Amino acid sequence: MAVRLCSNVSELLEIVKQQRDRNRTIGFVPTMGFLHKGHQSLIEASRNHGNFTVVSVFVNPNQFGPNEDFETYPRDSERDFELCGAAGGDLVWFPDVNDIYQEGSETAVVPGALSECLCGASRPRFLPGVLTVVLKFFNIVCPDLAYFGEKDFQQFVVIRRMAADFFMDIKVVGCPTVREPDGFAMSSRNVRLKPDQRDLALTLYRIIMKARDMFGKGERDAAALKESLTALWPSEIDLDYLDFRNPVSLQQVSVLAPDTRIFLGAWLDGVRLIDNGPLVG
Amino acid sequence: MAVRLCSNVSELLEIVKQQRDRNRTIGFVPTMGFLHKGHQSLIEASRNHGNFTVVSVFVNPNQFGPNEDFETYPRDSERDFELCGAAGGDLVWFPDVNDIYQEGSETAVVPGALSECLCGASRPRFLPGVLTVVLKFFNIVCPDLAYFGEKDFQQFVVIRRMAADFFMDIKVVGCPTVREPDGFAMSSRNVRLKPDQRDLALTLYRIIMKARDMFGKGERDAAALKESLTALWPSEIDLDYLDFRNPVSLQQVSVLAPDTRIFLGAWLDGVRLIDNGPLVG
Repeated sequence: MAVRLCSNVSELLEIVKQQRDRNRTIGFVPTMGFLHKGHQSLIEASRNHGNFTVVSVFVNPNQFGPNEDFETYPRDSERDFELCGAAGGDLVWFPDVNDIYQEGSETAVVPGALSECLCGASRPRFLPGVLTVVLKFFNIVCPDLAYFGEKDFQQFVVIRRMAADFFMDIKVVGCPTVREPDGFAMSSRNVRLKPDQRDLALTLYRIIMKARDMFGKGERDAAALKESLTALWPSEIDLDYLDFRNPVSLQQVSVLAPDTRIFLGAWLDGVRLIDNGPLVG
Repeated sequence: MAVRLCSNVSELLEIVKQQRDRNRTIGFVPTMGFLHKGHQSLIEASRNHGNFTVVSVFVNPNQFGPNEDFETYPRDSERDFELCGAAGGDLVWFPDVNDIYQEGSETAVVPGALSECLCGASRPRFLPGVLTVVLKFFNIVCPDLAYFGEKDFQQFVVIRRMAADFFMDIKVVGCPTVREPDGFAMSSRNVRLKPDQRDLALTLYRIIMKARDMFGKGERDAAALKESLTALWPSEIDLDYLDFRNPVSLQQVSVLAPDTRIFLGAWLDGVRLIDNGPLVG
């Protein structure tokens, strides 16, 4: 059946209810649109699980700080609709900002210690904004499973934490980062890079590969590895963080292990770049 | 059928599911225990609506500040169980604090502008703590209706706001304050008053009646009425607030109307006293 489109909450509720009455499980893929193969892999994961798959496309104003890129965040709803259909999505929901943040709306969700590092430290509005809108969406869609990309690993972890803390009957599924052939992590924001910045932007992936290489050769000292990698960092990119952290607690580690993740955040001429991965993966 | 008891979340889920499968609506009355006729009126309201009525008894540590009365808050679970049954409750749930705040639990709910006045101003942990635990309970019990006393009117308003903001399919019902024959508002904390403080504590109700009287005689100026009433306040009670506010926005009003509510908060020898009511009601 062809992918359908809706922007109205009551229409969405009706469609989802019909599917639930037919004993379909509901899979949910919340996105900010300008879809790429990473988003499509989430839709495919949901489809392959047999779910009726709802994809939301919503550039959430509340998760951007005043000097961040809400205005310039790329948008193309027609193309998003087509890519959802191509990946096997069943329903594309374009929420109306006035429904999601109705007049008088003011209650918010705040993460805890998991949000105090990485992107949460440099973008204080980001994770509270994400949790608040995701909780609203979860309560509207009532999915059985929800899919998030591991490229934004901290976001995935705090959402999984929220679902557990709030006793939500939703399985939060993390899916591997999808990369270009050369390893560059897919991101909607990549379109804002100029062609001659593409190679510099690949630094994050190169650093991850270098970390894996040195770990493979026996390096176990996080501070020493951080120092070696930082020395390789090009001055043209503003480094926000380069950390080695436990994948569950997001606490920094001093002794590296195979499941330790390296986390990288940077800005290149105003474009936000993040990447991460396990030291063995 | 006799009232049942449980403390285990999975047991609660099973019992509630059985009732839902029988097409019973679920009514929920969250309490901090040490029940009185005010709580019983909430249970009765739920029973009279035909609900299967779940009553939780949980002194929530997270809504008390470090110098507040968590330790001395009165507790008597055997008596609570009996009073629930007498009022027509079906299930009394004594949540285990280690289930509700499981290890690593850290996600919280925060209210907005509605919480910046009244008790929210003098007890900053109170309303975030209430919203967080009520959201957890709502997601566990999944009630159709939830009942709250209007004695804590601000709490009722912020919970109703949360349910709307988070698209929760739960009707939040406010029930009138239950009073002693002399007008004193029922509260679990009243047991901590010494006999000779009882008359002083009645000041809050007397002030509400005086406000109604003066409004009835034509007073419409909030500032003037506040001044008259404050002059009557006995020095033995620490006044926290005496405000006239809109019942929906909780904003202060300058011109009094019949639905304007007077709100009073005070401490008497460390015992928290609050009361409120509409100027015509």
